[in-house]
Amino acid sequence: MQISLTQADLISIFPDAKVEGQSDRTATGIASLREAQAGDLTFLGNMKYRGEVEQTKATYVLLPPDYEGAPSAGQVYLRVERPSLALSLLCRRIEAMLWPKLPAGVHDTAVIDAGADVSPEAYVGPFCVVQKGAVLSAGCVLHGQNFIGRDVKLGQDCLLMPGAKIMDFCELGNRVRLHSGVVVGSEGFGYETNAGVHEPVPQIGNVVIEDDVDVGTNTTIDRARFNQTRVGRGTKIDNLVQVGHNVTVGRGCLLCAQVGVSGSAVIEDYAVLGGQVGIVGHLRIGKGAQIGAQSGVNHSLPAGQVVRGTPARAYMLEQRLEVLKSRLPELFKRVGSLEETIKRLSGEIEK
Amino acid sequence: MQISLTQADLISIFPDAKVEGQSDRTATGIASLREAQAGDLTFLGNMKYRGEVEQTKATYVLLPPDYEGAPSAGQVYLRVERPSLALSLLCRRIEAMLWPKLPAGVHDTAVIDAGADVSPEAYVGPFCVVQKGAVLSAGCVLHGQNFIGRDVKLGQDCLLMPGAKIMDFCELGNRVRLHSGVVVGSEGFGYETNAGVHEPVPQIGNVVIEDDVDVGTNTTIDRARFNQTRVGRGTKIDNLVQVGHNVTVGRGCLLCAQVGVSGSAVIEDYAVLGGQVGIVGHLRIGKGAQIGAQSGVNHSLPAGQVVRGTPARAYMLEQRLEVLKSRLPELFKRVGSLEETIKRLSGEIEK
Amino acid sequence: MQISLTQADLISIFPDAKVEGQSDRTATGIASLREAQAGDLTFLGNMKYRGEVEQTKATYVLLPPDYEGAPSAGQVYLRVERPSLALSLLCRRIEAMLWPKLPAGVHDTAVIDAGADVSPEAYVGPFCVVQKGAVLSAGCVLHGQNFIGRDVKLGQDCLLMPGAKIMDFCELGNRVRLHSGVVVGSEGFGYETNAGVHEPVPQIGNVVIEDDVDVGTNTTIDRARFNQTRVGRGTKIDNLVQVGHNVTVGRGCLLCAQVGVSGSAVIEDYAVLGGQVGIVGHLRIGKGAQIGAQSGVNHSLPAGQVVRGTPARAYMLEQRLEVLKSRLPELFKRVGSLEETIKRLSGEIEK
Repeated sequence: MQISLTQADLISIFPDAKVEGQSDRTATGIASLREAQAGDLTFLGNMKYRGEVEQTKATYVLLPPDYEGAPSAGQVYLRVERPSLALSLLCRRIEAMLWPKLPAGVHDTAVIDAGADVSPEAYVGPFCVVQKGAVLSAGCVLHGQNFIGRDVKLGQDCLLMPGAKIMDFCELGNRVRLHSGVVVGSEGFGYETNAGVHEPVPQIGNVVIEDDVDVGTNTTIDRARFNQTRVGRGTKIDNLVQVGHNVTVGRGCLLCAQVGVSGSAVIEDYAVLGGQVGIVGHLRIGKGAQIGAQSGVNHSLPAGQVVRGTPARAYMLEQRLEVLKSRLPELFKRVGSLEETIKRLSGEIEK
Repeated sequence: MQISLTQADLISIFPDAKVEGQSDRTATGIASLREAQAGDLTFLGNMKYRGEVEQTKATYVLLPPDYEGAPSAGQVYLRVERPSLALSLLCRRIEAMLWPKLPAGVHDTAVIDAGADVSPEAYVGPFCVVQKGAVLSAGCVLHGQNFIGRDVKLGQDCLLMPGAKIMDFCELGNRVRLHSGVVVGSEGFGYETNAGVHEPVPQIGNVVIEDDVDVGTNTTIDRARFNQTRVGRGTKIDNLVQVGHNVTVGRGCLLCAQVGVSGSAVIEDYAVLGGQVGIVGHLRIGKGAQIGAQSGVNHSLPAGQVVRGTPARAYMLEQRLEVLKSRLPELFKRVGSLEETIKRLSGEIEK
Repeated sequence: MQISLTQADLISIFPDAKVEGQSDRTATGIASLREAQAGDLTFLGNMKYRGEVEQTKATYVLLPPDYEGAPSAGQVYLRVERPSLALSLLCRRIEAMLWPKLPAGVHDTAVIDAGADVSPEAYVGPFCVVQKGAVLSAGCVLHGQNFIGRDVKLGQDCLLMPGAKIMDFCELGNRVRLHSGVVVGSEGFGYETNAGVHEPVPQIGNVVIEDDVDVGTNTTIDRARFNQTRVGRGTKIDNLVQVGHNVTVGRGCLLCAQVGVSGSAVIEDYAVLGGQVGIVGHLRIGKGAQIGAQSGVNHSLPAGQVVRGTPARAYMLEQRLEVLKSRLPELFKRVGSLEETIKRLSGEIEK
């Protein structure tokens, strides 16, 4: 983070802030109240941390109007209605400063097929390959070392980080972001086995990614056997995720890191899959279902269900079962003790 | 999928088909009976779905000779002996049309060391690097942005998708396919720890991949400490798999996505590892063993064993244990109730 | 492994060895006593394998001085104080021969921004991109196809294998090694959801990697929301690992393949995470904690704790619980039998 904001800069960003104190230091970092050092900006986002404000070493502190206290020497209080929102606004400003949109144009070293259609408003970085029939719409940015296969279509304002790749015939909507090392449209894993030989089943479909999808670093999305593997609008996928062939992911889903979704599964809208979750092929995960990290889901889930565990069970049930599992040593003892008592009682009765 | 097949094209592909009906539409997609739209081709592969044929919106329908029914207006029935086989044949045709073999030659931008031996019948795409002593045999295709280290040997007709990489001294047989982002021959993870310092143990072996192996996107196969990490003939590896140093994978194995095989493990021929399976180092997984998804295998398995769970147990046992785990609440209640009864009985006996 | 060492070479490497026997063969491989073939060098590292020495087919055998026996015809015994150490020394020699340090210089095809600072003692390979403000210190080696973003700082003697990438503003210490496909500084996975729309939370921090860290193939390390994601000195990370935003990994840790560490977790010094382990966000894993493969850790761990399982429990407890889980069928039977006995006893008492 290479930020450098003077008190005047901060005042111009927060024109409505009530300012107390004065500093000549530039803010060069952002940190929590507790971790901030001199030169940092911090914020009181939740009143339960108000006790930490007095101790903070931060130079600049975003505070709500009703916080009681005063800055120490060389410290500046900026009182704003909603400090968290103000911080968020500030971060967006900083983000825009740190990563200004790249200007349109094609780097000298890029290899663009004559039959590709690259918008004059797109940026194509060094060592990119854009093949025949590919379409890059206005505002697309290919950072470098990207591979765009034949007849691939990119909507407006797509962003490909270095080394992201899209195989032939795949389609991206608008504002899709592929992080580094992502591969969209790799061959699905399908074989027919005859006499011990695994023959690849042709995978002649493609991948369609709708608007506003983010795909995390080194994630792989395989193309369909027929038709489409599809990722719905606004879905966000983390790093190192595997999306198998013919999978349909709905809108607004969240797939955390290292999730694996097997072929032909359907993930309905707004489902949330925790890290390292595995979904068996051909299942249907209902709308808004929530799946705890590392769960292994081997049956379809109705809408809204919350599960965890391998095999995945209803969240509260699995919690309870794990507690009972912890009590197995006790249970074995109790049963042993019952057996002894019964033996004794039987003896007494027989007498 | 960018297919376009007229009725005449289909008839030429299926010369033995009995044709009923007529359409001027070109088939532009393939879909299941239920999902097909006008313009699609579909098929009845299993008679249990015969009820769906009448409802399908597909324009072209592959059907067995004995299906009773007639096409609707503008629909075409193509009766063939085995619709599934016919479909498979069609898909192979389409695949060959969509991905024609690239012509031999070296792209202007590729960097080929003078000491490399590239067959005039190989294709080397843009931004490839081929280092000294590397051998690319006839029919090899490097799609682009590939890295071929020193003294790497590729047999005939190997296919490297964009960005696949092979490190120094590794060897591929014939018809090996590496998907995008694959890294073969990365350094094995081995350290000797002295006084808290982890010193890398030299990893001076290589990786040998036999004929007809497929390696999925972003999968990593580490080179051996000594000798070889080896993947046997006809084995198919899915995406994001980790194969550790000195591992031996036999012939005809299937490793599904996100599997991790730790160092020096031996996976014998025809073993099947489900998605996200983990294998502890130095184990031996017997021939034809089948390991359920997400299992964690911490002991060697005899040939043919079917296991699941973490720790992995025999499949039927683990199923049963999971059912019993689900019944723990009931068991705790039963034991509690027994304890009360016993207490009461003891009281009565003492009276 | 392309080694070729004559008996004379070996004697020059081990000048203190006592040599018995003679061979004209060059040693072309290294293997265990049992696996070695003619032409291989082997070693007796542990006296419990002494029985295998007589059977070994190796041409050269490293042995301790007190081993009793004599070489067969054409075989050479090299007696040294500590055969394992001698082997290790030999491997380092071979490693240095196989991978000589690349000479300094910038490949013609590399794209270096005029505002980057590349040491004349660094090597920058083909198709690398080095952006404005980046600093490559003396001894750095970029093997090829690497991407170095703006203002990235690399200390001395860093090694980037082909295709490793570092995003803007990240910093590496000295002797950091990034294997192929590694991405350092990708965007953290953070969203704020408003009315079903996931808005990316700006991730304006960076990644800092300290001295002597190794990062395995295709591993991803996300940049922080604010401040830094940090990997401490001497930590070694295996392949396909995910390190989330704002994570702090201490010094000397080992993260095995396919581990996932969620955002803001803290892994203290010398912790060891087995393969496929998952760590929930915001946890603290104490110094020297050891986490068994595939464990799912959902609570912070004190220093030195050894755990396994999902959810992770103390190692011995989890072992015991798994044994008891295996005995559930027996327990259910015992409880059923108790119930019958009680029923019978109750009947007798009532009589």
